Parts: sequence; structure tokens; C-alpha cells
Amino acid sequence: MTSTPGTIWGVGIGPGDPELMSVRANRLVRGAAHIAFFRKTGRPGRARSIVEGMLRADAIEIAMEYPITTEIAFNDAAYTTCLSEFYTEASSHLRDLALSGVDVVILCEGDPFFYGSFMHLYTRLKGHLSIEVVPAITGMSAAWTATGIPVTWGDDVLTVLTGTMPEAELSRRMGNTDAIVVMKVGRNLPKIRSALEQAGKLDRAWLVECASMAEERAVPVIDANDRVVPYFSIVIVHGRGRCP
Amino acid sequence: MTSTPGTIWGVGIGPGDPELMSVRANRLVRGAAHIAFFRKTGRPGRARSIVEGMLRADAIEIAMEYPITTEIAFNDAAYTTCLSEFYTEASSHLRDLALSGVDVVILCEGDPFFYGSFMHLYTRLKGHLSIEVVPAITGMSAAWTATGIPVTWGDDVLTVLTGTMPEAELSRRMGNTDAIVVMKVGRNLPKIRSALEQAGKLDRAWLVECASMAEERAVPVIDANDRVVPYFSIVIVHGRGRCP
Repeated sequence: MTSTPGTIWGVGIGPGDPELMSVRANRLVRGAAHIAFFRKTGRPGRARSIVEGMLRADAIEIAMEYPITTEIAFNDAAYTTCLSEFYTEASSHLRDLALSGVDVVILCEGDPFFYGSFMHLYTRLKGHLSIEVVPAITGMSAAWTATGIPVTWGDDVLTVLTGTMPEAELSRRMGNTDAIVVMKVGRNLPKIRSALEQAGKLDRAWLVECASMAEERAVPVIDANDRVVPYFSIVIVHGRGRCP
Repeated sequence: MTSTPGTIWGVGIGPGDPELMSVRANRLVRGAAHIAFFRKTGRPGRARSIVEGMLRADAIEIAMEYPITTEIAFNDAAYTTCLSEFYTEASSHLRDLALSGVDVVILCEGDPFFYGSFMHLYTRLKGHLSIEVVPAITGMSAAWTATGIPVTWGDDVLTVLTGTMPEAELSRRMGNTDAIVVMKVGRNLPKIRSALEQAGKLDRAWLVECASMAEERAVPVIDANDRVVPYFSIVIVHGRGRCP
């Protein structure tokens, strides 16, 4: 006797506020019998926290715990190998589950295809079984909404950067665009601040922490000093394009 | 006797599939007694179509009809003046409504602060009354999801461009980034195609029409020929960053 294989759902759960989940994501999360998510070892996990109180009482939870975070430098080859093995093992486990006939919902913070860990599972599973992706509100949408200022007008160019990039490249790209989003801020804030200053845009930049959540905070970068902020904080510079 | 002023809600309704509306947007749209939206004269309106079947039977609909679309060139000063007067008049009407004590939901396609017409009302109303913005899934998120390929990895730089830009600027910017989104494609497709070719990225570019809707279609740009596609079509070039 063989069972019909299940489907793996990569479900974007958005920036943090459960009410900003899509109607489809909300339905899938509440109905899931098997639900998987990434987390750091020993932590509850950000994605799992967002859906707290929404899961079926009998839901089987699959916590995929990152083997490393900052113990190895990210440009070290060992980092890549270690993560690669982790993603391959996690994918293999999820594939076995799905092939046994159950559907699995994978929780993805933000949008699954936009700088998400889910993508590393997706590329390993695609073609081997049914896998569906539900897009979501990105952290950056929640961040620019938190500033209370529209981000792009008319023909504005928007450049999305990561705070992990070298300072010279950050400042060059910041100088050559209308609107800016910097993801992965965290400990890179002093570098980002310096790059903004070199690009002449420090006075227009906003720092947003915990967008859409109870702890949401949006302040001008110039007022943020160099304090340590969460990794998922976002820096925004708004475009000023054509505004009839 | 004076009434308590109402709130104006700028509600992002996402890329087109009603199930991709957020839980909050879904609740606000279904509960709205006064609901406003933009449309071209004589058309049902894209935003209004998305919420078809969701409105209260007694909802009062406020259609804000654009005075012009392509009758005047967009770089003509008369275009700006005409649109400016239109937005000012629409804002004034909405403000009077809200001040009379009712809440008004304004339907915004995609995310309200990302290239949206709502922003022109928002800047005119902000500070004069209570105005709240609900972020949403962008058309570009739905578009890259439709291609079945993740858009940004690791430290990829994403550049968002508009098809209305000059070809030389498009190709220069396309050549100087990892991932690309081109909004406002429509009749600009031949120009975008040529810019992609100059940037050496034509073979990696996708054209997505009607993302997340029944008519969704994602094809390589190279197979799209130069046929006329909807204005809201989106071109995507995926990043190929660090993938452990």
C-alpha cells in the first residue's frame, strides 16, 4: 500500500504582526498537522513566536535548529559546508515526511523568496515533490509603513542593500539611487551610518526596529547613536520622486 | 452637536488574489461602510474588482476617477497640474467625510507606500485627521513567486526600476546590480528588453503578467516577443548570491 505524497508549503508569515499574515497563510497555519520552522538552538524561534496561539492542539512541530550562527565567520568555507549539510539534512527529513503522505507547512518570516532561509530547502526539494510558495508582506514594507512616509514615487529607483556589505560599496550604491532599504542591520549599524554620511543621506535615513510588532520603533538614524539593534532591523531612505 | 471624527484607512489589498489580502485588510474591507478607490473613467477599477463579493450590502462606494491617463504626456506640466487638482479634490471630499464622523477605507492595489496613488492623498490628509496605513504584499513579491525562483540570496543587491525610465539609464542600472525588478512594464516592454540585452541579462529575465490572478503568466522575456502586455506587468531578473 502506498499513500499519495503530501505537499510542502513554504508559507510567508509576514513581518511579525499576526494580523498581517495573508488570509491564505492564516488558513494554512491554523490547519496544519505538521509545521516546520527554523530557530537558533535554545531559542523559541521568531517564526514560531509569530504564530503562537494559532496552531492546532495536535500539530506536530518540527524545529530545524541552525547548527551555527556567529561561531564561524560567514566567509569561512567551513560555514558554507556546515550550513549546506544542515539544509540538506532538513530537506531530506521534510521530503520523507511529505512522501509518507502528509502535508507540511514551513513557516517563513517575511516573504519566502526574499532573503529567506526557506529558499535553501526549496532549491533542494523542487522537482522531487509538490512544493507551493505563499508570498507575504516583507519586513521592508512594514518598516517603511512604520516611518509614516511613502517610500517610492513616480520613477524613483529603489535599491535594497544588506548591512553585511563593505562600507565603500554601501556608500557608492547609496549615492546612486533614490530610495534605499538596508536589510540585516544589527551590528552593522555604525558602518551603515558612516556609509549614509559619505553618500550625503544620513539626515534622511530612518532606523526601524521590530516593524509591525508591539516593540516597533522608528527613529531617524541620526538619533539612533550606535547602540546595538536587532539583526532584523531595517534602514530606510525615502525617495522624493514626482508628487503631483 | 459635533461627532467624533472618523479614521481614514489606506488599506493595501495586495497583488490581486483576494486570499493574499492580510487578515487585517480582509476584516477592514468586509466591515467598511464607506469604501473609496481609484479607477479610470468608465472602467470597473482594478482595486474594486479584487474585492468583488466582499463588501457589505449597504457599503457606500466612492469611485475616484482619474481625469486623465494617457491623453496628456506625463512630462507635460498640464499633466501634473491636472492630477494635482484631482488629488486635492478627492482628499478634500474624503476629509469632509471623515470629519463628519465616518471611517473610510481606501483600497490600494499592492502596498500603499510603494508606487501607489494613495500616497498623493496621504500627503494631503496627514496631520489633518487620523489616517492609518495597512501594508500589503507587493505586486513584485507575487511576480517573483510566480516565476518559481527565489529573487535574492545572501548579500544580493536588488534594484527596483520603472519601465518609464530612459533606456540608457535602465541598461546602466541593470548592469550594476544582482537582482532586478522592473515595474510599470506595459508598452515599455521593447525598451526594457533592449536594455536587458545591453546589460547582458536578457537570457535571465522573466516577464510576469497578472501575478497571483487567474490569468497569471510567467515566461522568459526572450519568449515574450514584443506583444503588448498589461501596464502592471513586472520583469524579474533573479539574484544568484551565496547559496550554501
